Amino acid sequence: MIELYTSATPNGYKATVTLEEMGLDYNLHHVQLQENEQKRPEFLKMNPNGRIPVIVDKNNDDFAVFESGAIMLYLAETYDKLNPKDPKERSRMIQWLMFQMGGIGPMMGQANVFYRYFPEKLPSAIERYQNESRRLFEVLNTRLGESEYLAGDNFSLADIANWCWVRTHDWSGVSLDGLENLKRWMNTISERPACQRGVTKPERMGDPDELVKSAQKMVQR
Amino acid sequence: MIELYTSATPNGYKATVTLEEMGLDYNLHHVQLQENEQKRPEFLKMNPNGRIPVIVDKNNDDFAVFESGAIMLYLAETYDKLNPKDPKERSRMIQWLMFQMGGIGPMMGQANVFYRYFPEKLPSAIERYQNESRRLFEVLNTRLGESEYLAGDNFSLADIANWCWVRTHDWSGVSLDGLENLKRWMNTISERPACQRGVTKPERMGDPDELVKSAQKMVQR
Repeated sequence: MIELYTSATPNGYKATVTLEEMGLDYNLHHVQLQENEQKRPEFLKMNPNGRIPVIVDKNNDDFAVFESGAIMLYLAETYDKLNPKDPKERSRMIQWLMFQMGGIGPMMGQANVFYRYFPEKLPSAIERYQNESRRLFEVLNTRLGESEYLAGDNFSLADIANWCWVRTHDWSGVSLDGLENLKRWMNTISERPACQRGVTKPERMGDPDELVKSAQKMVQR
Repeated sequence: MIELYTSATPNGYKATVTLEEMGLDYNLHHVQLQENEQKRPEFLKMNPNGRIPVIVDKNNDDFAVFESGAIMLYLAETYDKLNPKDPKERSRMIQWLMFQMGGIGPMMGQANVFYRYFPEKLPSAIERYQNESRRLFEVLNTRLGESEYLAGDNFSLADIANWCWVRTHDWSGVSLDGLENLKRWMNTISERPACQRGVTKPERMGDPDELVKSAQKMVQR
């Protein structure tokens, strides 16, 4: 059994969607970010960075894995699911996964911070991250004009990683207008039952306004 | 032969240090960022994101790989160098590589933008990214109190990736004071001849003040 410690965020959904797509059994533990549970000593033993998601693999000596991208690759390699055998396809999958880890995730994340949570309104910072997110969406759109999925002909971890973020573009205040290849791909991924299930686990709990307020507090810590 | 398109930046050095540590032959092409060469059509064919570094592997049908973290994993797997066979060691290497890709790199990068390049001085944005970079250094310091290297007993790609960024902490305005495990590890990595060679390729060219000015212009594009 795999123990998953997670929350209802894009990085959290990368883990749940991956587990659902792979058909692996897992126990979901909902980490309450607004109560700072991810900074408690028992959590920091699993991930010294104090961030969700984390898995603990009971099938493998309670091995703990943190960083959403590393969880995806660990599960693919350990359980041989969504694990391309062609070395070039595999590398393309990793390239677009890294593009999400180092680009889409941090830039949309910072857009959210300055657009939604930061105590000061800094228009130039908001604009910087919204523009950079849009630029990265355009890169995805170009790629998806060449192939059906990011790594090529087959659905891969790279699609899960980028989709879990791009689907929240409205929250970041970034438009998909005119990006027809990206929209076609978003629709394709959104129709996958496992993707649909993954982004409901864990369910968002509590009053949305209260969740925003607690995120605002966290940014100030 | 491997063709490497790169510049004198932390992400660029991740590629050169990796190639030097692996002892692989490569041709270095110095991409002139201040002339925006990374946005030219011939470059975008190799990396649609218009960023360095990129490799083209002449030994493998001119296969192009972008994203520094993906280049590292591609080289490790293709040439079986710095490629741990133990699955747990391999996963720990990938976890700390992802920590650099999604954490150290973007946060130090944004610290540099607001501290060095941004047209407005925004003290709260500077503080945000310097604090977050320092927090991530503390996470590395904790990890390096448990093991000699980030993945465990052996030097790995994770050390290269994080070292190439952390060594530039002064430029980001972030101190290593009190982080004795991190300093011990920095010294160990800095003594490796291949690491020393890697961070001189390509050499920085031109007047440092002019380079800063061109980076300031790029941020405004």
